[in-house]
Amino acid sequence: MLQPLRLDSMTNKTARTQYELFYWPGIQGRGEFIRLAFEQAGVPYRDVARKPGGLKKLGNLMKSGASEIPPFAPPFIRMGTLILAQTSAILAHLAPRLKLIGRTESDRLRAMQLQLTIADCIAEVHDTHHPVSVEQVYEKQKPAAKKRSEVFVSIRMPKYLGYFESILTAKRRMKPWLVGSRCSYVDLSLFQLIAGLKYAFPNAMRRLEPKMPSCCQLFERVSKLPRIAVYLASERRLPFNEKGIFRHYPELDR
Amino acid sequence: MLQPLRLDSMTNKTARTQYELFYWPGIQGRGEFIRLAFEQAGVPYRDVARKPGGLKKLGNLMKSGASEIPPFAPPFIRMGTLILAQTSAILAHLAPRLKLIGRTESDRLRAMQLQLTIADCIAEVHDTHHPVSVEQVYEKQKPAAKKRSEVFVSIRMPKYLGYFESILTAKRRMKPWLVGSRCSYVDLSLFQLIAGLKYAFPNAMRRLEPKMPSCCQLFERVSKLPRIAVYLASERRLPFNEKGIFRHYPELDR
Repeated sequence: MLQPLRLDSMTNKTARTQYELFYWPGIQGRGEFIRLAFEQAGVPYRDVARKPGGLKKLGNLMKSGASEIPPFAPPFIRMGTLILAQTSAILAHLAPRLKLIGRTESDRLRAMQLQLTIADCIAEVHDTHHPVSVEQVYEKQKPAAKKRSEVFVSIRMPKYLGYFESILTAKRRMKPWLVGSRCSYVDLSLFQLIAGLKYAFPNAMRRLEPKMPSCCQLFERVSKLPRIAVYLASERRLPFNEKGIFRHYPELDR
Repeated sequence: MLQPLRLDSMTNKTARTQYELFYWPGIQGRGEFIRLAFEQAGVPYRDVARKPGGLKKLGNLMKSGASEIPPFAPPFIRMGTLILAQTSAILAHLAPRLKLIGRTESDRLRAMQLQLTIADCIAEVHDTHHPVSVEQVYEKQKPAAKKRSEVFVSIRMPKYLGYFESILTAKRRMKPWLVGSRCSYVDLSLFQLIAGLKYAFPNAMRRLEPKMPSCCQLFERVSKLPRIAVYLASERRLPFNEKGIFRHYPELDR
């Protein structure tokens, strides 16, 4: 089932690369974009911080001096001697190895541009419940969160999803995927963004969905990919909750 | 003076690549990170939207259908037939061509990780004056901006700059640059981040600087690079102002 992986000089200490993901246990968060890539590729990976003692390992690797450039924050991956943080950098690095992006430079650049745009949207989603301080709980910033969510739901969310819709429906486009002729990591990430928005803002999304049929089709298509479908039904897929990026607070979903 | 550029198949229609930058005129903003790269490389580039009729060209290229994957927002570049948006993707793509990153995959990945961390900080800087809505002016969200700025200045800014300080001062590090043995695009970007923070939060930065001597040295070192020094003294370097990302509002700088 598994495709042979092209290993580079930094990681081919063993014939089979051991992928380790380090991310906060208990939430999907930004780690989920990387989990979806591993799952769709069908490669084994260790979700380290969800194993006993794993959170301590995560903390140790984040310490200054543990690697030449330690992570500022999770998620990060370890592949042999390489430790790499930042979701979009991780995905750009993994995707060619996991066959989740085409071979051309053009496809890889387009994918990176779109992934960074998804990342921008995710940061805005996070700020709907944390507009004033990432250090304080939501309950301490509710009035500002309400205002920010109103703007997000009525202006920013339609703008971002409308952008992806416009790409999927562009003239002369014959393929149902965002980049290239096969499902890429960007499709998995757009699936996850839409899944999160459906969870956090069900009312707003219900109103918006008729205006984004191609995005909805992409969402359905990804959710039915055999490996993704198995993953979503497994215990490896954590449920959404009010600790992660996508949180459902009814008062923020008009 | 100029290094020969390695041109790839997407751009070598002519012997000399024509670099075009598209960004909002009148502000440094995210475009400045790309300007600094071009300036340090000493390659000619067209800052299109600052020329007569350029803003219209920018708008046309952002329209759906103008390219396969149009930009969600400026900055973006055009090189031959390639149109590429997202600051960090643009820099990752340009840097090897501009000799602003080493040849190893390890250096390129580390640079991308750090650039994305700088990008995260920049987004938080923007939110100090726009915590509730990117669609409304600062004056309509002053109370939330004051709270967000307090948290940024007292917690987030020291955390980000402390992270870069820890990398520069790590044991066994012999080089004065963030990645590799020469000045890379990430050093230029950290310079710009610090320059912006000094403009926006002079009081807070004056208190913080004794705790970040290596970052301050890097800032000075970059500002004295011959090409950067010439650029900073030129009319091409726009002044900071209260339309960009880094804005000086005395009430936000305790």
